[in-house]
Amino acid sequence: MTRNIPIVEDIMNANDQLAIQNHARLEQADIFAINIMASPGAGKTSLIEQTLKRLPAGIKVAVVDGDIATSIDADRAAAAGATAIQINTGGECHLDAVMLRNALDQLGDLTPFDLLIVENVGNLVCPAAFQLGTHKSVLVASIPEGDDKPYKYPGMYQDVDALIINKIDLLPYIPFKMDYFRQGVEILSPNLVTFPLSCQTGEGLDVWVEWLSTQITNHVSSDIGEIET
Amino acid sequence: MTRNIPIVEDIMNANDQLAIQNHARLEQADIFAINIMASPGAGKTSLIEQTLKRLPAGIKVAVVDGDIATSIDADRAAAAGATAIQINTGGECHLDAVMLRNALDQLGDLTPFDLLIVENVGNLVCPAAFQLGTHKSVLVASIPEGDDKPYKYPGMYQDVDALIINKIDLLPYIPFKMDYFRQGVEILSPNLVTFPLSCQTGEGLDVWVEWLSTQITNHVSSDIGEIET
Repeated sequence: MTRNIPIVEDIMNANDQLAIQNHARLEQADIFAINIMASPGAGKTSLIEQTLKRLPAGIKVAVVDGDIATSIDADRAAAAGATAIQINTGGECHLDAVMLRNALDQLGDLTPFDLLIVENVGNLVCPAAFQLGTHKSVLVASIPEGDDKPYKYPGMYQDVDALIINKIDLLPYIPFKMDYFRQGVEILSPNLVTFPLSCQTGEGLDVWVEWLSTQITNHVSSDIGEIET
Repeated sequence: MTRNIPIVEDIMNANDQLAIQNHARLEQADIFAINIMASPGAGKTSLIEQTLKRLPAGIKVAVVDGDIATSIDADRAAAAGATAIQINTGGECHLDAVMLRNALDQLGDLTPFDLLIVENVGNLVCPAAFQLGTHKSVLVASIPEGDDKPYKYPGMYQDVDALIINKIDLLPYIPFKMDYFRQGVEILSPNLVTFPLSCQTGEGLDVWVEWLSTQITNHVSSDIGEIET
């Protein structure tokens, strides 16, 4: 069975190479790209819907949605005004750089877009292991998932750039120790920015959208983008 | 890359063989075993805690907890009165039959136990693909995850024996169309039993525990157990 390991390593290396190519392609088209990850039902699609509603007019957005099955998420993103591509992974529990490359092919000319939002498959394990070539990784946690998730899924909470804490409107009804949660996060990603918000009530969304807008503006004006590591 | 596929098939076959061995071992010791699966934070551990509190006295329970990291879940199961083994999978996003075999080895003599509860890694994709050798698979859904999950994660909702719908106390605060959810479930698992409940308020738990107790009693008296397929 040990002969399997080099093949797995080859796949990871091939993925990283393709992620670098995707990144170069995004840079050339001057698009800022984020990779949104979360467990199933944390609110990735709701966040995208609410973000699309609040972004300044003139920012053109493409959304690439990864799911095991259905086009529910891409349909919702399209209804909210984005150009949306659905990737059905079949059994695969994460997106990889090949899937994103194929989605970029489907989008065609990338230059009209300012922002690419990649919505990864709902999963707190595997998506963290596959670079896609985006600029920033955004993790969506949610109050009902519980405050122990950074401790139990350290791979996902490590090296995240931004953390959304969604469904804060449910805090009165759920035992969730915010200090314990934040301690777990800070050990793994000390420099990340956090956005407690509710896609249901709208609370906190403006702060997130302002941060995202600033990232897009700074990226376009800097001309040099760094690949997330 | 195609040369990778036969190896993956070999792994699956080897897993199925080991699952059959695990099953025989459980049968020999007259233990009824369930495999609890769910997305992260749906409430698997809370369900186990509440179940342990309510099972008839005299039913001896072993719990095998699968997690990427920490022993939080096994500690909680042990505090609730079970003999608990924690499996840390490292990066693996699911339990497999080898991991369960190793946990059974750690438990030692299995004959004192009546019920084995396996708590799989929080993930709505991969655990469904790996048989462990248990008798029944139990899926824990939760209201905050949203009503579209059966449609988006069909592999997990297929061929489930029992479905817990947890966190029903949050129904007043969350848009969740129960009919839409149930329709999606019935297409994939038409014969499953469902248990709407709340581990927070205790509502509905007695019906679930009664069903489980009956399964344990029937299994011990039948002498013949079928492996879940």
